[in-house]
Amino acid sequence: MLILARVQRNEELEKQLQEQFPNVDFLYIKNQEDIVKHISEAEVFVTYGEDLTEEVVQKAEKLKWVMVMSAGIEKLPSQILKERNILVTNVRGIHKIPMAEFVFGYILQYAKQLDVFLKQQSEKVWNKKVPIQEVYGKTLLVVGAGAIGSQISTYGRTFGMHTIGINRSGNKNDAFHETYSRDYLNEVLPKADYVVSVLPNTNETQYVFTKEQFNRMKQDAVFINVGRGNAVNEEDLLEALNNEELAHAFLDVFEKEPLPEDHPFWTCEKVTLTPHLSALTNMYLPRAYEIFAKNLQAYIDKNNDFINVIDLDRGY
Amino acid sequence: MLILARVQRNEELEKQLQEQFPNVDFLYIKNQEDIVKHISEAEVFVTYGEDLTEEVVQKAEKLKWVMVMSAGIEKLPSQILKERNILVTNVRGIHKIPMAEFVFGYILQYAKQLDVFLKQQSEKVWNKKVPIQEVYGKTLLVVGAGAIGSQISTYGRTFGMHTIGINRSGNKNDAFHETYSRDYLNEVLPKADYVVSVLPNTNETQYVFTKEQFNRMKQDAVFINVGRGNAVNEEDLLEALNNEELAHAFLDVFEKEPLPEDHPFWTCEKVTLTPHLSALTNMYLPRAYEIFAKNLQAYIDKNNDFINVIDLDRGY
Repeated sequence: MLILARVQRNEELEKQLQEQFPNVDFLYIKNQEDIVKHISEAEVFVTYGEDLTEEVVQKAEKLKWVMVMSAGIEKLPSQILKERNILVTNVRGIHKIPMAEFVFGYILQYAKQLDVFLKQQSEKVWNKKVPIQEVYGKTLLVVGAGAIGSQISTYGRTFGMHTIGINRSGNKNDAFHETYSRDYLNEVLPKADYVVSVLPNTNETQYVFTKEQFNRMKQDAVFINVGRGNAVNEEDLLEALNNEELAHAFLDVFEKEPLPEDHPFWTCEKVTLTPHLSALTNMYLPRAYEIFAKNLQAYIDKNNDFINVIDLDRGY
Repeated sequence: MLILARVQRNEELEKQLQEQFPNVDFLYIKNQEDIVKHISEAEVFVTYGEDLTEEVVQKAEKLKWVMVMSAGIEKLPSQILKERNILVTNVRGIHKIPMAEFVFGYILQYAKQLDVFLKQQSEKVWNKKVPIQEVYGKTLLVVGAGAIGSQISTYGRTFGMHTIGINRSGNKNDAFHETYSRDYLNEVLPKADYVVSVLPNTNETQYVFTKEQFNRMKQDAVFINVGRGNAVNEEDLLEALNNEELAHAFLDVFEKEPLPEDHPFWTCEKVTLTPHLSALTNMYLPRAYEIFAKNLQAYIDKNNDFINVIDLDRGY
């Protein structure tokens, strides 16, 4: 069995995997041409998802399983994968800790004005008159109350925040003080001090945050997006920030990435941006390999005991 | 009964207090001269502590109680206060939430390299190759495992950190995974990824952190001081940072404050500094007034039910 893999190289992890599966042939490749060259022989393709085009699947005559080593599967050619009945799994779940930590990095940077102190230090200014807030007692609204959102809420509750989750069903999620379905988003927005979107990119999440939602936020609310850029109408967000309808936005994801050089977010004082990496830490690849290895065992054992099987109709 | 108060003014809090104690005369004063003018009539003096000199106490013939609206009481004229048997109380305990939050602001700024992203944004650079760490799984050593230290540990444990506390007695503190007495400091230092000092300024805390302690830290350890500056030999810290014996220091307190303009900390890339305000938030004064009001009730009721009575011999 040939497994074709195009992911970040890591000698140690690759060695471990080969030792665990001595009878499997792993071929690690570098670029798109290598995929085209070898995909017809591969039974399994390991990918971050972006290089799996419809053309590639057409050539992949033996392909039975795509292991996506990321969470975002919005760019997969769903139709042909479904027709060919190809199994798709991803590494959902490994993002929750790094992303929830990242969100609290944002929140505490804001509440403690740490950027102001960096500036003061660079100017040798000793000035205590900086309005520091507490996180304690604030209300945290998480839109997309799945695994990542629950982790964010868990941290928030330890910090003494009141947490509200929005999920599709509105089913109770014990990680949150309150849970509502998306229908109630507009109703709960005015309560939140921090609004965090962890929405994936699906048909249902396009422009969840537009003029109306920003308008309903508190004037001193902070909006955070670590999910996907498509959930936010960026023009509306900028206008709302300029109109002081909310106080600040921390954004890790954008409608177009990399963020174009002339995008007004770069220079907007009320926007703090990071280059889509809230989930990326030195622990990412080891955790992804762990899931891949478990799924590979299930694949070999034919026991159907897979982690994170994707429903291509739902898109997650 | 006259209560002389020299603290930050707040109309609402003062009004509430007057309503709660209609028979008490409160005199809020602005400067040191006002103290000298009125202290002889005052039974109670409310202060941040720094303006209560030995001279003032000598003039304060009716003084029975000093309510210190801060935690640091190292500058109080202990000898004369003891001789005169004057009750001293402070607002210990109100610092734990803001300070523990501040510490995690530092920790997450470091782990997530948020200062690097601020710089990248200012240069319009989209660069994902920034080595982000997780807090999860790291070891947190708190030196001074009292109320504030326990709060820091509580947050740390939620983030999946292993926490070690150092207190004077070495008595078990359930907030921590492990607790040791000060004698074991050198032994546990090599285990820690984050070393946090919350030590107060007492006779026992002078230069707890010198060359030897920094040398025992991991090369990639981060040192944080939000306690008092006297616990750290600053020259030794600078040398250790320059020798790469540890990775970074976050400092809110210093041997001399404000930090002198020519101090090398200002420009050291491995030092991030803030101007002694980790405890100061918009919640500080309301919480301090709450303790003051409870103690004033105890004072009036003569029931000795005071919060935070200071033992002037121990210094806390």
